Amino acid sequence: MAVIGLGSMGLGMARSLLRAGHAVSGYDLDEAANAALVAAGGRAGNDPADAAGGTSIVVIVVVNAAQTETALLGHGGVLSVLAAGSVVISSATMDPRAARALAVRCAERGVHYLDAPMSGGASRAGTGELTFMASGTPEAFVAAKPAFDAMAGKVHNLGTEPGIGASFKIVNQLLAGVHIAAACEAITFASRLGLDIAKVYEVITGSAGNSWMFENRVPHILAGDYSPRSAVDIFTKDLGIVSDIGRSEKFPLPIAASALQMFLMTAAAGMGKDDDSSVARLIAQITGIDLPKAKKA
Amino acid sequence: MAVIGLGSMGLGMARSLLRAGHAVSGYDLDEAANAALVAAGGRAGNDPADAAGGTSIVVIVVVNAAQTETALLGHGGVLSVLAAGSVVISSATMDPRAARALAVRCAERGVHYLDAPMSGGASRAGTGELTFMASGTPEAFVAAKPAFDAMAGKVHNLGTEPGIGASFKIVNQLLAGVHIAAACEAITFASRLGLDIAKVYEVITGSAGNSWMFENRVPHILAGDYSPRSAVDIFTKDLGIVSDIGRSEKFPLPIAASALQMFLMTAAAGMGKDDDSSVARLIAQITGIDLPKAKKA
Repeated sequence: MAVIGLGSMGLGMARSLLRAGHAVSGYDLDEAANAALVAAGGRAGNDPADAAGGTSIVVIVVVNAAQTETALLGHGGVLSVLAAGSVVISSATMDPRAARALAVRCAERGVHYLDAPMSGGASRAGTGELTFMASGTPEAFVAAKPAFDAMAGKVHNLGTEPGIGASFKIVNQLLAGVHIAAACEAITFASRLGLDIAKVYEVITGSAGNSWMFENRVPHILAGDYSPRSAVDIFTKDLGIVSDIGRSEKFPLPIAASALQMFLMTAAAGMGKDDDSSVARLIAQITGIDLPKAKKA
Repeated sequence: MAVIGLGSMGLGMARSLLRAGHAVSGYDLDEAANAALVAAGGRAGNDPADAAGGTSIVVIVVVNAAQTETALLGHGGVLSVLAAGSVVISSATMDPRAARALAVRCAERGVHYLDAPMSGGASRAGTGELTFMASGTPEAFVAAKPAFDAMAGKVHNLGTEPGIGASFKIVNQLLAGVHIAAACEAITFASRLGLDIAKVYEVITGSAGNSWMFENRVPHILAGDYSPRSAVDIFTKDLGIVSDIGRSEKFPLPIAASALQMFLMTAAAGMGKDDDSSVARLIAQITGIDLPKAKKA
């Protein structure tokens, strides 16, 4: 099996595949990431095709549709070496139309394409407990099963058409992004109201105002720890895709649009590579409230 | 004990107090609500003072600060009859400054004031499992204990100063309102993307995009049932208070502002008395998507 893209998610997936006893090769543009794969017991290829040579399951977990296309079809792309009947598990968040287009390119070579974005952070990638929102042909699911068995806590089979998995992920990211921005807005507002924000965390997580993201991200703010578990730039990207689709579909998304602006402001203020809870730091800077002191990221 | 305000919340609280063996009197402007109290085994007063006569614990659960002030200090208000050492449990959502001012008026008569807004809907009021976000003097908490024992699953003691409970509630309502509007935006967007929205509900509730409100309100949309468990007008009011405080504190709240506009649009379109999930109906009307057919509310 091969993993293309060895960020914290890809590396975690590679470790889960290795732990399950599979031979794993991989490739990333970052040499340090390739070295980390080798240290974990995998083989680093010189390019995606080199990593994918001789395998029949390739997981592509890069940043976006363009990088996925390059990994598939660019110079040294995996489609130049994959045999018919192989499967590509495509896990980057992307516009559903892009997923459909990539599936067509794979089908032209007789390669199955599974549109399979995921939910769950790097820690779940490492423990093999990711949730996949997947769509594709029954044959693609069968071919991908050995990899999912090692990487996934749950695989939602959402339909036979590529693009459905991508759409589910987009809806999830809309909500996740809004909930992070709202958590940052609420917790800084609570501080301005003079409340003990640790107590706010305790009360809200047991109340109707709770969200998965409030519960997960506010502890970063309480600890002043903005090291990136998931970066602001992920949401400028993902809410950017949401915005693109909304405009092309002529579908107004005012709440998501507000959240996107908050992430863009935070990135513009120099925090794009920091944890996405940094939206709270931006609001604190603007409004002059004191949050728990930020550790050096 | 007396309960002033016998909407679905107040009536549920009265039922919990009755079930615990307390004598309960009450008052509401709506005669049908007074009749419901009598049917449940309570006594209906002719005005708040008549209801509160002879009691030492009064729960005021009306719509806002102005109605609370009237119930306390207006013609036939409870402060005209309460003995020193009695306690007022004030549960309407209001600006923290209003809560502090009402506490001062009570203290002038030697009456304890507990700033005690709550979380949990009418069903939890009826089962005695409300969560209270309360602040006030230790004496106020001691005096209120028999009522909380019957009404509350959890009482957060958040400090000795009135206004703290109100502030916690405001932060909760900011998040709750944003999460409802975001849930409506996301589920209608999912419909436009051609997804099975029942499946979206299943997947999102197990993913990082989940919120308490998404989980609670989207089933109303799936069932086409917009009978008001909690009405749109509650959130035009509560996010209105959030907006007021933000402006007076010079604190920007862009996400909450977007959500408020969505509730105002929904109310403007004639759905103010319907369930707050009606924001999804508004978006469906605007965009022409088909949601599950609405039952007659």
